[in-house]
Amino acid sequence: MYVVVVYDTLAKRNAAILRLCRQYLHHVQRSVFEGALSPAQLRRFRHAVEDVIDAGYDSVLVFTFPPGTTPERQEWGIAQPAPSDIL
Amino acid sequence: MYVVVVYDTLAKRNAAILRLCRQYLHHVQRSVFEGALSPAQLRRFRHAVEDVIDAGYDSVLVFTFPPGTTPERQEWGIAQPAPSDIL
Repeated sequence: MYVVVVYDTLAKRNAAILRLCRQYLHHVQRSVFEGALSPAQLRRFRHAVEDVIDAGYDSVLVFTFPPGTTPERQEWGIAQPAPSDIL
Repeated sequence: MYVVVVYDTLAKRNAAILRLCRQYLHHVQRSVFEGALSPAQLRRFRHAVEDVIDAGYDSVLVFTFPPGTTPERQEWGIAQPAPSDIL
């Protein structure tokens, strides 16, 4: 299924969550990732995220779409920074 | 159609873009909004956003879904802050 993930974590955990998201998904904005995951991949990703975040402070939103549908993404303003510009 | 909006703007423009998003959408995370907009509402929202942002610096991602579909949203970690906690 297609997912969009947006995280809002304490700065000191940003690098870890960024690395983890990159293992599973495509980077589309500073703290936004998207991509297709199987249900099993999504479960593994969730467990890995829960190992990294502080569930009492950090927030990770995951939008999942019905099978066979994908979002259309518009970029208003500047296009995504080059990967090397992102941390 | 259902939309999810994520903005990444210079801090001094955050309050303006937040106010604008609140006029059209439901606040789900610090810089994330979602809701249903007609094509005409989406056009008006886009024009209003483009009046507020610096298109050479700010980025606003808009995910739109096919008519009749809505994303399922999961919250991992802490639930969204109360509206009064958000700026």
